[in-house]
Amino acid sequence: MIQGRTWVFQNRPVITAAAAIGGPFEAKGPLAEDFDVLHEDLWLGEDSFEKAEKKLLEQACERAVDKAGMQKEDIQFVMSGDLMNQIISSSFAARTMAVPYIGLFGACSTSMEGLALAALLVDSGNAERTMAATASHNATAEKQYRYPTEYGGQKPPTAQWTVTGAAAAVVTSEGAGPRVTAATIGRIVDMGLKDPFNMGGAMAPAATDTLEAHFRDLGLSETEYDLILTGDLGKIGFRTMVDLLDEHGLQLPQDRLNDCGLMIYSEEQPVQAGASGAACSACVTYGHVLNRMRSGELNKVLIVATGALHSPISYQQKESIPCIAHAVAIEAG
Amino acid sequence: MIQGRTWVFQNRPVITAAAAIGGPFEAKGPLAEDFDVLHEDLWLGEDSFEKAEKKLLEQACERAVDKAGMQKEDIQFVMSGDLMNQIISSSFAARTMAVPYIGLFGACSTSMEGLALAALLVDSGNAERTMAATASHNATAEKQYRYPTEYGGQKPPTAQWTVTGAAAAVVTSEGAGPRVTAATIGRIVDMGLKDPFNMGGAMAPAATDTLEAHFRDLGLSETEYDLILTGDLGKIGFRTMVDLLDEHGLQLPQDRLNDCGLMIYSEEQPVQAGASGAACSACVTYGHVLNRMRSGELNKVLIVATGALHSPISYQQKESIPCIAHAVAIEAG
Repeated sequence: MIQGRTWVFQNRPVITAAAAIGGPFEAKGPLAEDFDVLHEDLWLGEDSFEKAEKKLLEQACERAVDKAGMQKEDIQFVMSGDLMNQIISSSFAARTMAVPYIGLFGACSTSMEGLALAALLVDSGNAERTMAATASHNATAEKQYRYPTEYGGQKPPTAQWTVTGAAAAVVTSEGAGPRVTAATIGRIVDMGLKDPFNMGGAMAPAATDTLEAHFRDLGLSETEYDLILTGDLGKIGFRTMVDLLDEHGLQLPQDRLNDCGLMIYSEEQPVQAGASGAACSACVTYGHVLNRMRSGELNKVLIVATGALHSPISYQQKESIPCIAHAVAIEAG
Repeated sequence: MIQGRTWVFQNRPVITAAAAIGGPFEAKGPLAEDFDVLHEDLWLGEDSFEKAEKKLLEQACERAVDKAGMQKEDIQFVMSGDLMNQIISSSFAARTMAVPYIGLFGACSTSMEGLALAALLVDSGNAERTMAATASHNATAEKQYRYPTEYGGQKPPTAQWTVTGAAAAVVTSEGAGPRVTAATIGRIVDMGLKDPFNMGGAMAPAATDTLEAHFRDLGLSETEYDLILTGDLGKIGFRTMVDLLDEHGLQLPQDRLNDCGLMIYSEEQPVQAGASGAACSACVTYGHVLNRMRSGELNKVLIVATGALHSPISYQQKESIPCIAHAVAIEAG
């Protein structure tokens, strides 16, 4: 069922199982205990960072399938995307999964783009068992978008740190677990910002736009959710979004509002404005948040994953950053 | 409704309107009359080929909306992807469309990945008016995947020519036009081929796999369709697929089987093994095929768009080419 640009899932698809895999830097963060596997080696024993990223994603998919008590062939469709050119991490992991595959690109918004579509397939009766997955790797992202980390390039304080990790969720029509109740699909919002070292600032208006649409479409009270998490706005972007929400008159309780990019690392870790990367909102949601929902600490949660959809080429050609945010509502099962 | 990995669209979403835009080389091909606009200038008056590709896609979207008698804000969701890193053509065109946007990556299979999802949204009642779109540009693809065309790099006879074009379809719950009846989602098939100058050969097994799944899932007779078109296998890949189908015992009538990559250019055009690119199957389907369906020449058609999901990095790291094919069945309205 549709209301505005929000899909309302009347059959409330279940997140039967989920898994989050992290790297050495994530292991030092405050959410370490919510990861299923934490790797000490940034290379995961592979001979390239790209292969390490693929392995992270394969592990997240395998672990999620395993936790759901399934075999990978039980998954009817996997929806995955990542930051790599031609989303190679996803396509190679989908080769390993060997099940029907829908490739997505939403940059750091991919987590909720995938979860929204996986839930839609199940809700509409076009699948019984789907998977949404995504990954990112600090070193592959630095190399592709900026410089190989070995160069030791400096960054301004507005920059964010790409999470090394992967996460996957098994979404089904039957079973126990938190339920996906609605999803609001974002549109491109571009306020003309061009600085790729301040993606949080660029993405803040997109998050605001999707939040407004979600509350308006469903006619929700501002206190509907126990927790609303944006994807990876970081310090600058999150503060900007709070100001924008205020300007637009959407008074979400501040103590129930946070950003995945501000949660995954500690204040002591040198991540400038916070975390980013497709794995950021995915790991926080599929690890930390779902764990807190299962333990009864949280009941209704809204995840607003944000994405900066530029490329090095579009930046070099002086284009601004087109941004998007997709929101998914999850309720304790 | 699902059968195997095939979605059966019981409400038979309508392709109310579609548009195909091409470049100067496409204007010389045998399907020229089926394009809505053919540009004489490969740059479309822009100062970069990437901006030209974005403009092609914007024009396809605008023209399709226009032909549907709609305004762009009538479109509830646009599903688009392309070959560019971070699918910038799609994201920037979606900024222009200013409607909710789901970014896809399926390389040259994007056309049918998008049409399948657009139809699914409509069929399931999660949208009334959607759009599927994609684009490619010969010069952006050469620059990104191989060398800038100005270098004059040579290619082997197995190579294919990336189509410069864009195409879009408006898919709705109401109205008149050809109807989308089913879609079979592909899985990754990778037979270990590594030559990026023979993508048709690499993709042939994926097309075979999806064709077999489609006929098996729906229990169809081999003569069900008036026409079955693969995406962009070209001469080598198409011949390989015909052999594979024969080996697998799927006896599709040869006179009803063709490949978009063999149709869009003439024998005289120096395209080596044929055409490729995300716009190849999209332009042939949304232009030529739909026109022939509307004129009554064709009744039931199956489009099997194929994609080679490698990247320059995966090639440099000695990986093989993961391939996929998504099939969509269309019936005259």
